[in-house]
Amino acid sequence: MRIAILGGTGNIGKGLALRWAYKHEIIIGSREQSKAEQMKESYEQILLENTTKTCNISGVKNDKAVAAADIVIVAVPYKALKSLVDSIHPFLTNQVIVSLVVPMEKQNSYLKYVQPDDGSAAAELKKLVPDAIGVVAAFHNLSARKLCNLESHLDYDVVVCGSDKEAKKKVIELIEDINGIRPLDGGGLENAAIIESLTPFLINLARRNNLHELGVKFV
Amino acid sequence: MRIAILGGTGNIGKGLALRWAYKHEIIIGSREQSKAEQMKESYEQILLENTTKTCNISGVKNDKAVAAADIVIVAVPYKALKSLVDSIHPFLTNQVIVSLVVPMEKQNSYLKYVQPDDGSAAAELKKLVPDAIGVVAAFHNLSARKLCNLESHLDYDVVVCGSDKEAKKKVIELIEDINGIRPLDGGGLENAAIIESLTPFLINLARRNNLHELGVKFV
Repeated sequence: MRIAILGGTGNIGKGLALRWAYKHEIIIGSREQSKAEQMKESYEQILLENTTKTCNISGVKNDKAVAAADIVIVAVPYKALKSLVDSIHPFLTNQVIVSLVVPMEKQNSYLKYVQPDDGSAAAELKKLVPDAIGVVAAFHNLSARKLCNLESHLDYDVVVCGSDKEAKKKVIELIEDINGIRPLDGGGLENAAIIESLTPFLINLARRNNLHELGVKFV
Repeated sequence: MRIAILGGTGNIGKGLALRWAYKHEIIIGSREQSKAEQMKESYEQILLENTTKTCNISGVKNDKAVAAADIVIVAVPYKALKSLVDSIHPFLTNQVIVSLVVPMEKQNSYLKYVQPDDGSAAAELKKLVPDAIGVVAAFHNLSARKLCNLESHLDYDVVVCGSDKEAKKKVIELIEDINGIRPLDGGGLENAAIIESLTPFLINLARRNNLHELGVKFV
């Protein structure tokens, strides 16, 4: 698969690039070509230190990344979502978009989920893109630190919400390519709010209990 | 501690009774004396099959259970909450109440969290009881089946939300008495909605993915 990764919110995007680069073609997207190239080089460096396998990473501007991709990972902050979609809209044809976006804001020392009028960031994104584009919500509840550390053994569940069954199936298959992550079907896109809202909940929980970045496992 | 357990929604109440009976005094409450006695006997039978240790369980009407307790576990369905509180209100003096209540309803084949106007069932309960009574929300995201099976090895996290710090501390200590459950501080009672809403989410997730009853572990 050709996977465009746009934005690196909380470094989940970076972690996914590193974990998929052995098997898929990774296209790092950024607003600036130079920044995309920088990221590509730093990711390649990490991969070279960890494997002798061939990895396929490139770095280009967001619109070019999207034009070349089958799957588009959107990992930008919520406030950048609308302008990102505006910039890539003309290049959306039949890709699947995966939303990692979480609308949240600081309240005292903790984070609070700010539910968009459409119910979730993923549902809002779905309204912003052409009808043919399948939108799936996933990867909100992982530890980016562990995902980025290729020596770290993962043991997480990733809940995948989406109303386009074909799109969801593709994303579930991509998740199965990462050792130690079990994809779980979370139902339609109308269920995305709860997995988005778990992100600030997990961050606050870690902070309150002096724990490292938390992911989730259903047992 | 003298722990009153009122109601057995999803059998979490039963599981807690069985797991605590070795160490604490358990008072099973029910609307009817005869039903409370029946439950007491059936729990004692299970405990006798599993241990030679002395266990202390009694079964009485809800109001008597509350009058005799330090901690009151409220595990009734949401629709029974108001009338339960009405019946025990005169006997509330300085107990700590632990709410396991989850307002949810069926929608097609799945469950949906129905958020009360007060934000959560626990927050609503807090408004219904005398000011001096500490209310804590906990035990929403456990597998009742595993909790009730004393041979089952547990490995769960229980998030505890409550704004009364002393009350929350007591509940956290009680959770530490159950092997395999780690209590985590979830902050104030205003955070109870997310742990309540995780209950239908987990039930739906299990159903969609053909899994057994799910609990949660933060890793």
